Amino acid sequence: MAVAENAPIFARSSPQPLAVLFERRFGYRLQMDSVTRNLAEGALFTDLYQLTMVQLYWQEGIALTPARFEHSFRTNPDYGTHQAGYCINAGMADLIDWMNAFRFSQGDLEYLATLGNPEAPTFGTEFLGWLGSLEDAFGELTITAIPEGRAVFPGVPLTVVEGPLAMCQLLETALLNHLCYPTLIATKASRIADSARGRPTFEFGLRRGPQFGATAGVRAAIIGGATSTSFVGAAQVLGVSPAGTHAHAMVQAIDALGGDELEAFRAYAKVYPEETLLLVDTFSTLKSGVPNAITVFDELKEQGHTPVGIRLDSGDLAHLAVRSSALLTAAGFPDVSIVLSGGLAEFPIWQILTQIEQEAPEYGVDADQLIDRLIFGVGTKLLTSEGAPSLDGVYKLVAVQQDGEWKPAYKISENPAKRVIPGHKQVVRIYDQSGRAVADVLAVDEEDISTKDLKLRNPKQASVSRVVGQEEISEIEPLLETVWNGSPVPGYDDIDAARARRLEDLDRLHPGVRRLVRPHVHHVSLTEDLWNLLPIE
Amino acid sequence: MAVAENAPIFARSSPQPLAVLFERRFGYRLQMDSVTRNLAEGALFTDLYQLTMVQLYWQEGIALTPARFEHSFRTNPDYGTHQAGYCINAGMADLIDWMNAFRFSQGDLEYLATLGNPEAPTFGTEFLGWLGSLEDAFGELTITAIPEGRAVFPGVPLTVVEGPLAMCQLLETALLNHLCYPTLIATKASRIADSARGRPTFEFGLRRGPQFGATAGVRAAIIGGATSTSFVGAAQVLGVSPAGTHAHAMVQAIDALGGDELEAFRAYAKVYPEETLLLVDTFSTLKSGVPNAITVFDELKEQGHTPVGIRLDSGDLAHLAVRSSALLTAAGFPDVSIVLSGGLAEFPIWQILTQIEQEAPEYGVDADQLIDRLIFGVGTKLLTSEGAPSLDGVYKLVAVQQDGEWKPAYKISENPAKRVIPGHKQVVRIYDQSGRAVADVLAVDEEDISTKDLKLRNPKQASVSRVVGQEEISEIEPLLETVWNGSPVPGYDDIDAARARRLEDLDRLHPGVRRLVRPHVHHVSLTEDLWNLLPIE
Repeated sequence: MAVAENAPIFARSSPQPLAVLFERRFGYRLQMDSVTRNLAEGALFTDLYQLTMVQLYWQEGIALTPARFEHSFRTNPDYGTHQAGYCINAGMADLIDWMNAFRFSQGDLEYLATLGNPEAPTFGTEFLGWLGSLEDAFGELTITAIPEGRAVFPGVPLTVVEGPLAMCQLLETALLNHLCYPTLIATKASRIADSARGRPTFEFGLRRGPQFGATAGVRAAIIGGATSTSFVGAAQVLGVSPAGTHAHAMVQAIDALGGDELEAFRAYAKVYPEETLLLVDTFSTLKSGVPNAITVFDELKEQGHTPVGIRLDSGDLAHLAVRSSALLTAAGFPDVSIVLSGGLAEFPIWQILTQIEQEAPEYGVDADQLIDRLIFGVGTKLLTSEGAPSLDGVYKLVAVQQDGEWKPAYKISENPAKRVIPGHKQVVRIYDQSGRAVADVLAVDEEDISTKDLKLRNPKQASVSRVVGQEEISEIEPLLETVWNGSPVPGYDDIDAARARRLEDLDRLHPGVRRLVRPHVHHVSLTEDLWNLLPIE
Repeated sequence: MAVAENAPIFARSSPQPLAVLFERRFGYRLQMDSVTRNLAEGALFTDLYQLTMVQLYWQEGIALTPARFEHSFRTNPDYGTHQAGYCINAGMADLIDWMNAFRFSQGDLEYLATLGNPEAPTFGTEFLGWLGSLEDAFGELTITAIPEGRAVFPGVPLTVVEGPLAMCQLLETALLNHLCYPTLIATKASRIADSARGRPTFEFGLRRGPQFGATAGVRAAIIGGATSTSFVGAAQVLGVSPAGTHAHAMVQAIDALGGDELEAFRAYAKVYPEETLLLVDTFSTLKSGVPNAITVFDELKEQGHTPVGIRLDSGDLAHLAVRSSALLTAAGFPDVSIVLSGGLAEFPIWQILTQIEQEAPEYGVDADQLIDRLIFGVGTKLLTSEGAPSLDGVYKLVAVQQDGEWKPAYKISENPAKRVIPGHKQVVRIYDQSGRAVADVLAVDEEDISTKDLKLRNPKQASVSRVVGQEEISEIEPLLETVWNGSPVPGYDDIDAARARRLEDLDRLHPGVRRLVRPHVHHVSLTEDLWNLLPIE
């Protein structure tokens, strides 16, 4: 068994005195468990083989050989019965924050020195000394990337890393980790936002989200179109207003202490007269929850306050929304919000809206008016990307430099889908004369694609090609922008800009690309020149 | 739109000088982005409504009323075509680390003071002062829990929290967050370990895992039976030896620089003569990869070294394993390992082993001998629990104290599955005379269950009950142990003990509970006395 006998050396040391200094300066307490977390999440937030490869490069004298790696994903998330037509790119800001802090500490190096057979340690002393001397390991790297928030497609390089081979390799695991999960969540959030027809979607997923990965997940959800989050810490860091309602426990507690639901609601209204949003399903939504809420809303109104709304968290949500809406409207509250939550995602929301349109007339409710008062609370299924919990991102060497000349790097593999397209590339999106995006195109770096007609190849099917004449094209838009040039390019973490890019991109794509089911395929093509570089199989 | 105009205040401050102090003392550099992370992952690692509820309790004078909450999950993970028969409990150690560090900092309080309408802020100054004065907020809490690593079942209280109502509420989000995801991953790891028939399973999932949640995921995977991890930082923190092979990029780079696969393998063997594990699928596994590996193994052998093995990462893994094994054995290497990776989880592993048993004889390979040399690299599908990416954990108020007497707390809900079983409970596992676990039983706290025959009720079906006589029972085992008593009970983070508990428990369950498909149902029952406390529907 590979589990060692000894407990880790640093894991339980207490940083108390420094925490106090820290708090004085930064206004918050350094959490003690961040001592452990820093060990795991610093330079050693990587796979062992990245470090063994770097030692090999160093010993072979090629650690500083210029190299180029590309990051892309292979397929749109497949949720089982349906597959996304696009992804929303996200995660770069967190990756850059991580890179900015990157450095092998003395503790990291001491740990690495313990690995392997004591007589033949995995890492040599000289090599570890070299690692420790890298004050600014990523200072020679350049990263271009498709900006956060943009719609992106399988097989297109989303991130291109250029610099010393060893440093490109050191980055691999953290790069994939920081980009795959957020892109997956931004994509889910975008589908959910679309299904909600412009109504707000609140992110409520922290409790069942992936532990401390939830912060990155919430950021991605906001980029992908979520309106807010219940996670207070993430809201603070992201500059978003946090959202919340109330807990079942509050109604239960007041009930168990001899009160009742109405008393609980009154207590809530007393403390939050301008923010009264009542959870009405603790006992019976229609028999007690909504009538009690109406009583309290009446009282608030008399006191000059404006009640905010109710929340439904169980049962047949669409039916209960129709019935509650009828009661609220009849009681003189046609505008208070109805928050729906409980297992929601793009299809449940679609189903709820469809059902509301069918059922509302039966109860004399105007379906459109009801839909206009809805807010969707989306939790677990958003932060875990229910149905497709991972994105198949890869990071591949495509070229290395020798004597000043770039050499393409090949990988053939048993599986054609895992083939690497070698060499330097241009990555552009082309738009037709109506301004609609018609394809993403990969071309050879030196190729002039702005004057000639483009023969476009399907990268996976040799027999499929088409020609797009320049007269058909209104714009050839380069997609990659520099985000790291030895250090971060300012603006890399602008979440509002990322949100805006998503909306712009979705407007310029073929509308069918956004469909929840059987989306239109946005083409990703190679120019003939790039196609000719592919290894023959 | 709820996204604020202004960037967060503290997010980009640089902790440089303190980081240096920190490194001097703790031997590692404090990551700069932990400044941001601490904001999100400290006391504000919670949902807004927990804080609004606490203010309400405080204003109503019931913040310190003794309360009892129970955490459980509702259903075993359902992977679509199949459902788990049990879960492996995990995550408590990280929760306790978080609790140990819990405190509202000045920065947290200043942030909370900004929320809501400036004229009617959500949180009052006095209340925030009270929050800030909680030097040891969880000092009055007691937590009992089923220990990490144990097999657990739906509807059974896994964690019971008792103490002041406000503090129980403050804990909810972080408790669920820290326990749901790890339990899900430990469960997946356990199924994978079972499917691998005792062969090692290496965790390789960091790159596509949920950002910084991966550390908790790896810990859970190790508890659930994974043998090792490629994630160096997590290995260090957990006291596990990290595992790794080599990168495609290394072969590609040496090839692009004018060398070839054989040269790349030789470079690897030169640097790691005692740890030579070669990735053979960069160009063609059988035509070049394995023959080149054999050449290098021969050279290593001549030099007195023992080659470790090969890794197959694409193609028809079972077929390639059989063919590679034949080649390796014929070349005099019958014992070197064959690591398989690429999209593996419990069913792919089951399929691979089945296929090997079918195909091996065709190539003159002994299937059992081949299986004995296999190691499984399990990545993405383990750390994201492919098929069932979330566990439906809940945390419910079950009782509050008034005038020294406990009052049961009810919740009825539109959905019977969301019903709360109120009151104080005993939680035990009963074993039959052969020593096999036959059921988990929930009973009223004061009930004597060790002398009378037990009438056991199915909690979801009123018509289903059975009687178990005391003479049938060999042991009644209380499952809950104290893990927090104002502060951590030592031993809470013993990962080796957790691993051992899993093996013991799985041995004592009905063997069918472990089946990957259509598992035997381990019963969870209520005693008649507890049943009688349920609200009538």
